[in-house]
Amino acid sequence: MSTVDAEALTAFCRDLFLAADAPAEVAAVVAESLVYADLRGIESHGVVRCEIYLERIAKGMVEPRAPVVLTKDEGVTGLVDGGNQFGAYVGVKALQAVTERAKRHGICALGVCHSNHFGTAAYYVERAVRDGLAMMVMSNASQTMPAAGGVRPFLGTNPLAFGFPGDREVPFILDMATSLVARGKIIMAAKRGEDIPLGWAVDKEGRPTTDAQAALDGAVLPMGGAKGSGLSMAIDIMSGVLTGAGFGPGVRNMYLDWQNPQNVGHFFLAIDIARFVELDLFKRRIGSFIDQLKAEPRAPGVEELLYAGEVEHRLQTKRQREGIQLADKLTADLKRLGEERGVAWPA
Amino acid sequence: MSTVDAEALTAFCRDLFLAADAPAEVAAVVAESLVYADLRGIESHGVVRCEIYLERIAKGMVEPRAPVVLTKDEGVTGLVDGGNQFGAYVGVKALQAVTERAKRHGICALGVCHSNHFGTAAYYVERAVRDGLAMMVMSNASQTMPAAGGVRPFLGTNPLAFGFPGDREVPFILDMATSLVARGKIIMAAKRGEDIPLGWAVDKEGRPTTDAQAALDGAVLPMGGAKGSGLSMAIDIMSGVLTGAGFGPGVRNMYLDWQNPQNVGHFFLAIDIARFVELDLFKRRIGSFIDQLKAEPRAPGVEELLYAGEVEHRLQTKRQREGIQLADKLTADLKRLGEERGVAWPA
Repeated sequence: MSTVDAEALTAFCRDLFLAADAPAEVAAVVAESLVYADLRGIESHGVVRCEIYLERIAKGMVEPRAPVVLTKDEGVTGLVDGGNQFGAYVGVKALQAVTERAKRHGICALGVCHSNHFGTAAYYVERAVRDGLAMMVMSNASQTMPAAGGVRPFLGTNPLAFGFPGDREVPFILDMATSLVARGKIIMAAKRGEDIPLGWAVDKEGRPTTDAQAALDGAVLPMGGAKGSGLSMAIDIMSGVLTGAGFGPGVRNMYLDWQNPQNVGHFFLAIDIARFVELDLFKRRIGSFIDQLKAEPRAPGVEELLYAGEVEHRLQTKRQREGIQLADKLTADLKRLGEERGVAWPA
Repeated sequence: MSTVDAEALTAFCRDLFLAADAPAEVAAVVAESLVYADLRGIESHGVVRCEIYLERIAKGMVEPRAPVVLTKDEGVTGLVDGGNQFGAYVGVKALQAVTERAKRHGICALGVCHSNHFGTAAYYVERAVRDGLAMMVMSNASQTMPAAGGVRPFLGTNPLAFGFPGDREVPFILDMATSLVARGKIIMAAKRGEDIPLGWAVDKEGRPTTDAQAALDGAVLPMGGAKGSGLSMAIDIMSGVLTGAGFGPGVRNMYLDWQNPQNVGHFFLAIDIARFVELDLFKRRIGSFIDQLKAEPRAPGVEELLYAGEVEHRLQTKRQREGIQLADKLTADLKRLGEERGVAWPA
């Protein structure tokens, strides 16, 4: 393990993408979104993705200079064509459009097509929440999960996220994959050479497995069986079918498919809270909800009842102060990527 | 078991509510929504609820003659005050308002407060889908589930529902509680005197239990642990905090609290698909998604991969033709309710 300062790591990643011909704005957003994930303990969506992102650029599978275009705009609804840009950059552009329109019109729903892996949904949700909006974000993803009753990957672990401002330092931010566990946790276990608990995934023949690599060749399982499977498909419909992006097998795997862009789709819904209730009252109600939660009796061994986003926010604060710990293999991979591009690893 | 014709059962229930001073429109909607649930195999939300609904009227806890009022209306957003009417009637009124506005403006989000138990969310979603809209419905509910890390009920099994039209007879309708299993399944098991599987619920001391009655005195568990807990809280925020309805412990239990109205909240989001993609193309894409699902390899013992709403729709068709089977105890209860009010049980 080595420890790296978050700001220095962000600058390093940004320079990697700059060296790969990404414009300054794009490189900065992608780097920030990756380090944001590492800060919040979602390492699966963090700088571990630098290598594949760079490879996607190199092979022409991601176009870091493409414009992101609002192809339909009717104020309260719209469509964004990501132009096969980096997902994080497409996401930020969509976020800016959806928040501006929600503030003006009270609500806005934007569909996004021709995007790529956009990192953690929380990255967008938190920005909207800091802006005083209620936010829902969905995305589809390439196939990693069998549908209920199936044996091989058919659906993505399509995430669903909600965020709300409150009168506390830490906003409520739920960002959940529809798998029982995030696929990224298995990627990390495989990187670390560790086993995974039984029940997280099946191998490529559909058999339960504790082998992280076999699980990556196979499939993670939906949360709650048919419920998670149905929810993932609903998110795919909102993100893909509605937007013109890929859906189901039409969302390409960034690790396996070198012939086609991913064509990931997203769905952003922003709501101006004041259209329903005065914002300060809403925030106080959230605070009272949190107080009630914290006052609940706790199960044995539980020190505190936490709401969605608290664990991540605490890690973020700690890691911003103390730096981000990276596994040795990951550090070595990043250093190599830097050396190949003349980008110095942070001292 | 006895078998009752769906139409005759609906008329019977309607007459029960008419006898309890509900106007014709209210009685018809509430009866239809209950029988709809029975037809679709969601017996927990079916005519088993007649008795408690009638009791809530008798004790002044539900007001079947109250007006349902749109207290805020800005076209794309709005607030509905249910006036402590029956949830199903409030839901239908909100549905009418939200679909009409979504067709006019492209999208509409309505928050609903001062409502009651509104039955299955699918009842509203299916109507919107038949109308060519994409629909999301949420509701909060009284406390039956501990938050992650807690021991006693703090959150409702707050349902989340999505529906989309397709080029098939059966629309995609996902209607899921955020508990691992619907609390209603435990109510039915208790009515039948049956045990429940371990893992569905805890008793009132927070211990795992297979006793259905002990589970009802205790709590059902969220799906996916912290995920289901967070999702339930997010739904509560959209349905309760945002709308001015109760939230968390503020949503009253219709079986236990005879001092206060339930103050349930709902959230309806309707989307005009044509704002994003031509409706026929959307429907064909849904059809293609379904075809791909059906063509997937199946796990051993699985005859067909089903999408959300198919099981329910098949039951509905069968039961509309063959009648609805009711447990003897339930039939006896209904007959008694009819006798007390001079309403004849269907021959």
